[in-house]
Amino acid sequence: MPTTTAQPATDLTAYCDTLADRALAASRSLAMASGQQRNNALRAMAKAIRNSKDALQTANAKDLEAGKAAGLSPAMLDRLELTDARIASMADSVDQIADQGDPVGKVIEGRVLDNGIKLQKLRVPIGVVLIIFESRPNVTSDAAALCLKSGNATVLRGGKEAMHSNQAIAKCVQQGIAAAGIDPAAVQLVETTDRAAVGMLLKMEGKIDLCIPRGGESLIRAVVEQAHIPVIKHYTGNCHVYIDSNCDEQMAVDICVNAKTHRTGVCNAAETLLFHADAAANGVLQKVCEALAKLGVEIRGDSRTQAEFAQAKTATDEDWAAEYLDKIIAVRVVDSLEQAAQHINHYGSKHTDAIITRDLAAADQFVKTIDTANAFVNCSTRFSDGGQYGLGAEIGISTDKLHARGPMGADDLTTTKWVAYGNGQTRQ
Amino acid sequence: MPTTTAQPATDLTAYCDTLADRALAASRSLAMASGQQRNNALRAMAKAIRNSKDALQTANAKDLEAGKAAGLSPAMLDRLELTDARIASMADSVDQIADQGDPVGKVIEGRVLDNGIKLQKLRVPIGVVLIIFESRPNVTSDAAALCLKSGNATVLRGGKEAMHSNQAIAKCVQQGIAAAGIDPAAVQLVETTDRAAVGMLLKMEGKIDLCIPRGGESLIRAVVEQAHIPVIKHYTGNCHVYIDSNCDEQMAVDICVNAKTHRTGVCNAAETLLFHADAAANGVLQKVCEALAKLGVEIRGDSRTQAEFAQAKTATDEDWAAEYLDKIIAVRVVDSLEQAAQHINHYGSKHTDAIITRDLAAADQFVKTIDTANAFVNCSTRFSDGGQYGLGAEIGISTDKLHARGPMGADDLTTTKWVAYGNGQTRQ
Repeated sequence: MPTTTAQPATDLTAYCDTLADRALAASRSLAMASGQQRNNALRAMAKAIRNSKDALQTANAKDLEAGKAAGLSPAMLDRLELTDARIASMADSVDQIADQGDPVGKVIEGRVLDNGIKLQKLRVPIGVVLIIFESRPNVTSDAAALCLKSGNATVLRGGKEAMHSNQAIAKCVQQGIAAAGIDPAAVQLVETTDRAAVGMLLKMEGKIDLCIPRGGESLIRAVVEQAHIPVIKHYTGNCHVYIDSNCDEQMAVDICVNAKTHRTGVCNAAETLLFHADAAANGVLQKVCEALAKLGVEIRGDSRTQAEFAQAKTATDEDWAAEYLDKIIAVRVVDSLEQAAQHINHYGSKHTDAIITRDLAAADQFVKTIDTANAFVNCSTRFSDGGQYGLGAEIGISTDKLHARGPMGADDLTTTKWVAYGNGQTRQ
Repeated sequence: MPTTTAQPATDLTAYCDTLADRALAASRSLAMASGQQRNNALRAMAKAIRNSKDALQTANAKDLEAGKAAGLSPAMLDRLELTDARIASMADSVDQIADQGDPVGKVIEGRVLDNGIKLQKLRVPIGVVLIIFESRPNVTSDAAALCLKSGNATVLRGGKEAMHSNQAIAKCVQQGIAAAGIDPAAVQLVETTDRAAVGMLLKMEGKIDLCIPRGGESLIRAVVEQAHIPVIKHYTGNCHVYIDSNCDEQMAVDICVNAKTHRTGVCNAAETLLFHADAAANGVLQKVCEALAKLGVEIRGDSRTQAEFAQAKTATDEDWAAEYLDKIIAVRVVDSLEQAAQHINHYGSKHTDAIITRDLAAADQFVKTIDTANAFVNCSTRFSDGGQYGLGAEIGISTDKLHARGPMGADDLTTTKWVAYGNGQTRQ
């Protein structure tokens, strides 16, 4: 079938304008599409992905070959690969998004005014969403599905190393959309690797409503600096566990071990432990560090940590800010909850931070004073996740404070509209 | 009493850094302030404003004198003036904000997860909010009060023509804050008129969380172009009334007259009327235009309007985009609701748009397809207002789609935080 995505033009400006104009027009027609129609498109997308396994892997093989030739790291090549299992999981994920409740039209609040006007605040699609991402090709179908679920048109800009894979996935997405009678421009892939295109798209106020960058810090910074449209950032997760003066020793060991080692390469893994001086003096610090070291975790501590756990290497200022995504953890001893809060608010990434305590007032103070998207008491940072929260699929975990904070699902891809029904009311 | 606001330094960068650092520190301490403490500050602010009438008017006289010398228009001088009634109204408004419910700590959603973790999504302060505004000095107390109510620290940058008035009001604000034992840096006024300060503050990511510009389009555009921090815009109100094929003639006349003439200088006044061809042919257009013309409203129409109402002047493309804020209205005849929607989505400002119809399907289609913050059926656009909606005081009407849309009150000056209480849960 012919791809309906706009083709790279010699004139990049014209290409980007066309892309944005088509997306805007598609978003207008999506406003009238029912939830059933959008779900039909999603189920047809999932089916097309399953039926196109060979085509997807042929396209993916080209990217893998080029990637090897370009000297991509084994980790990057692994992320790029579309195995049988990953293709099945992409399709399943799209079906699961179809199964979720419809965010569009949800009534957030409503009342009848004294003058008889029936007033409601409803969730409605945002309009056109630009997603900029790096190597994982599954983001193409995940992001397209979540945006379509919430009634938005999407412009997808993936990494150039995954271009063939992304194009093949976009074909499946468009088969699904066409099957449901939705404007094919509801999902468009940017098919030029010219970086200037991103800069142009980021300045299309009035046509593109939102950009969500997914990737490393340098990508996100570049987006923020160029953008005239709103950006919701998904920065790093430098997550903390603070072990309070009064806490259960075994709970401290279990939670710290789980938060660090359950999966090290994820944004909700713990990267720094802060121990109250009492928890250093009474042996909790030592027990926690021993348990971690036993599992192969490298401990980098301040001098007070080293005094209790001699094996610890010396932590530098960079360690407090690091998102290791690896079997390394920074450990510091503090004199109070206030000092812990200062440390976390200064070095943290406002993602997920936990306290381990028996003290109700300490828990309350921690929850109030830590400036974070997810404040946890006596549980592992690993629970900060849309699936764990029961929100369904997530497009990421926002470390921003505006519009969406924390796990960001289909609801967060909507805006609101005040709708008023009267019968002739005029203002006195 | 000594003003606690940072003083202009010779080094502008140092001045802005200090301002932002103090605001950040104040926002951290505000996180622990109770609703009662914040309300006490507000009531003390209101009292200080009432008790400082003479000082406020002395300061205001300096601004008025300088304004006259600088040749400000009578309308601008009027906006600048702090009359007895305006000072009383400023104080009343602060008291009313104290009377409203506390947005901080509101539970938006919550559940107990299968593993026993108690999960809640709560409203919490955003942090530090930068408000940039033009000549009306009452914005100083309104914005300070709404931000304080919602637990945010505020940096206020008013127009240079109102500097003395703003400084005098800021003193009252700070008396109130000090009386409640809150960090005086919770509200700071930028006391330099150097425009470069705005550019610097707009790039203080990590210290300032949000900017809300209040003023003309050129101010807002300048803010958006310079900002690296999120901006919520309050653009113009180019509001439409679409008169459908099947509608009540008297209702059309009443609503159009009210929407245009109840107050012409406000953002929710109607600026364009669109008539379905049937409503032009059956005399509704003529009746509406006659009623408006009788009240001194100048009609600027397309040729089909002029065919029904000869008095109408010729509308140009600029008229469709104009926010007149005056006794002028643009009128166009369209062939369908779809064409009306295209017109509104193209020329409108996404503020408030109304349909007059007896047809349920037309009402539904209008509400769904018009990309607007406030979609009205059979009532005047003048109802789009936080007070009318029962939301309490508003900081403006957002024409953005992210974070806040439509009338923006204290709730919209908060972000959310996921709070989880467990008893040792680790992820399997």
